[in-house]
Amino acid sequence: MKRRTFIKTTALSSLSLAAMSTAFSGVKMPLANELRVNGKRIEARIFELAKFGRDENGRGYRVGYTQGDKEGRAWFMELMKNAGLNPSIDAGGNIIGKRKGKNPSLKPIAFGSHIDMVPDGGNYDGTLGCLSALEVIEILNENKVETNHPLEVIVFANEEGGLIGSRSMVGGLTPEGLEQISQSGLVMGEGIKGIGGNPENLSGSLRKKGDLHAFLELHIEQGGILENENLQIGVVEGIVGILDCIVTIEGFSNHAGTTPMKLRKDALLAASKLVVAVNEIVTGIQGNQVGTVGKIEALPGAYNVVPGKVTLGLEIRDLSWEKIEMILAEIEKRAATIATETKTTITFTPEASFTKPALTDPALQQKINEAAKSLGLSSKFMQSGAGHDSQQIASIAPVGMIFVPSVGGISHSPKEFTKAEDMTNGANVLLQTILSVDQS
Amino acid sequence: MKRRTFIKTTALSSLSLAAMSTAFSGVKMPLANELRVNGKRIEARIFELAKFGRDENGRGYRVGYTQGDKEGRAWFMELMKNAGLNPSIDAGGNIIGKRKGKNPSLKPIAFGSHIDMVPDGGNYDGTLGCLSALEVIEILNENKVETNHPLEVIVFANEEGGLIGSRSMVGGLTPEGLEQISQSGLVMGEGIKGIGGNPENLSGSLRKKGDLHAFLELHIEQGGILENENLQIGVVEGIVGILDCIVTIEGFSNHAGTTPMKLRKDALLAASKLVVAVNEIVTGIQGNQVGTVGKIEALPGAYNVVPGKVTLGLEIRDLSWEKIEMILAEIEKRAATIATETKTTITFTPEASFTKPALTDPALQQKINEAAKSLGLSSKFMQSGAGHDSQQIASIAPVGMIFVPSVGGISHSPKEFTKAEDMTNGANVLLQTILSVDQS
Repeated sequence: MKRRTFIKTTALSSLSLAAMSTAFSGVKMPLANELRVNGKRIEARIFELAKFGRDENGRGYRVGYTQGDKEGRAWFMELMKNAGLNPSIDAGGNIIGKRKGKNPSLKPIAFGSHIDMVPDGGNYDGTLGCLSALEVIEILNENKVETNHPLEVIVFANEEGGLIGSRSMVGGLTPEGLEQISQSGLVMGEGIKGIGGNPENLSGSLRKKGDLHAFLELHIEQGGILENENLQIGVVEGIVGILDCIVTIEGFSNHAGTTPMKLRKDALLAASKLVVAVNEIVTGIQGNQVGTVGKIEALPGAYNVVPGKVTLGLEIRDLSWEKIEMILAEIEKRAATIATETKTTITFTPEASFTKPALTDPALQQKINEAAKSLGLSSKFMQSGAGHDSQQIASIAPVGMIFVPSVGGISHSPKEFTKAEDMTNGANVLLQTILSVDQS
Repeated sequence: MKRRTFIKTTALSSLSLAAMSTAFSGVKMPLANELRVNGKRIEARIFELAKFGRDENGRGYRVGYTQGDKEGRAWFMELMKNAGLNPSIDAGGNIIGKRKGKNPSLKPIAFGSHIDMVPDGGNYDGTLGCLSALEVIEILNENKVETNHPLEVIVFANEEGGLIGSRSMVGGLTPEGLEQISQSGLVMGEGIKGIGGNPENLSGSLRKKGDLHAFLELHIEQGGILENENLQIGVVEGIVGILDCIVTIEGFSNHAGTTPMKLRKDALLAASKLVVAVNEIVTGIQGNQVGTVGKIEALPGAYNVVPGKVTLGLEIRDLSWEKIEMILAEIEKRAATIATETKTTITFTPEASFTKPALTDPALQQKINEAAKSLGLSSKFMQSGAGHDSQQIASIAPVGMIFVPSVGGISHSPKEFTKAEDMTNGANVLLQTILSVDQS
């Protein structure tokens, strides 16, 4: 019997619903592990979505809560409707589309990302995850696959504005947060209302621990590691924590012509030594931690004046908060030596808005990696250096993240690009991981 | 005979005109080397002059060509008239007061400085040299001393705007220079006209080589060397040359979270290494050279972006132009190594507006030092790190400069301060040097 043959040639764990449905319908359908996304459809929709939210100069400007964002969301909801997802908008403005599972007592498997972008941003950040999530549903529909778990496609609102939608979903959006001005120019609460949310009653759509069986997010890497190592899939181990810190160096402003070198208290010399020290400390220990001085201001800022005051913006990221704190302590120690050497004072003021690391679920990591392997794709376990909605959802559900290569490691730029083949690979890993999770 | 006694008790070289005039008038007058300025008068006039050119917040704003500058100049000319100096204004706007000498065939000994100031400047920069010059004349008048050489008191116009008055006097003010906007907001030519000059005919009052016997300038040090070494008089060996250079470091802007340390092309890290290298190179060789990075800009300038481009403002000063060029070459060599290390490119673009060093006259240096010694004052041969009118005049006449201590080395600031005792010392050295030069 044909069906038997099928069962024999596939491992029991991959015995698919599709195969079973084939048996009943009599139409030959591929096995679940043979299901593949339609990469062309994903790519075409990437470009369709990219048309929404262009500024007068043609630059991408689908910033959360703007007209372009609203148009992109409307377009996406239409696609969801056509896919039978019956989309709705929760209190935080997130779009949620649902697909029933065979077993209504099981918690949903959710997946998705965001479609808002930074000003002058690219076409792949977030959108790939959303369009691939929709693609998964459509492939399941087309192949008449019914999962055990209900499925949810989530398009989080205003990710680039500070993970606002995902934050609201897990109770992390404070009344103060709602009062902040968003990149759109609107106060956050107004922005949420404008896209159909209900900021007065965020608790109405809170997801609690255990409400979701799992959350999966496919995303472009936004860095150059996969490309650099010629790999196809990144299995994300976690999203790094971020500590931002203002470093203030006070020396003494003096005439650059009349002040001998040995009488100077040059704040920029001290700052420069510190920038070099930050790099030495961060690169001097094992691991994937990064440390960046991205901002500098030297006052008064003239050729002929020894700088009296310098302000630096220091950022440290790692999967371990303890390591971040250890690195900061080491930098502060070196700063004390530099301050003495240069006759300056150096003070560190951490910004209030730090982000703690969010780890992904080890079982989901394994499932993603197995899915990649089963598809014949090379993979690597890695951290996410950028923030993602997954890190919010990690507080209420096991999360898994799949990365695909970014050409040149470029992101948040019109030059952001991911090859169609890599997008297809990522979407196939998402599909196979969902099916695998559904079976477990 | 009383006169004989006088002659006997003084060295022949210091046989003074005052002593001789005493002989004829019958009134006992001090010997020339016994003449002393009236320090109280200088100090009182410093404060009187400081009243002119205050902005609405009471800050010093006697910027060249402004109303305050004009008022200060009118006040000063009135004092010159009272001292019999018969002041006039030359084509460049400089105020020149003349006092006849015994020998009309001798070239004048000139001395002076400027009374304009930087915005929010101090009360001593320039003004001390002008008021002491006037004081010298008044002391000579009061003691009925007639010099061999004619004397000239010069108040140079708009020194702080780029040595404009002294530049015009030696043919260094170009038609392009006249078109530049001055700190007053006026085009330079208009400014000169406004204070009574004649910018259309600058050649009318040009001074040529040999027109002046010598030029002497008393000035506050504007640095902290004399105070630091507890010395009273600085004998200036020369005014340093200045090379300003834009240094551009190009790396690659990238996401600070997703770009591993080893894949970065961090322009700020490269710039910081270069700032440290500049300091090492400049302090690593013998001499009084200074090297300063006073300006820095890092783009795009955000916590979460590796800086892709940094611009530095580098300045090197020394009495030797060859040394300045050697230091720049050394810095460029180190920059090449840093560029390779950091995967950046570093380019040096010297500003067109460099200043060549101007050396003072060695014989005048000796006379200044002897005058200080004869007055029982401690002294030191030193360079001037700041620019002065003397450096322009050095192209047509032997110049000498006298420095007195600046408290805390502070200048171009309301905190600029020189003790009354130090001002008096400086003015006495000026007086005694003029008399000594007149005898030589």
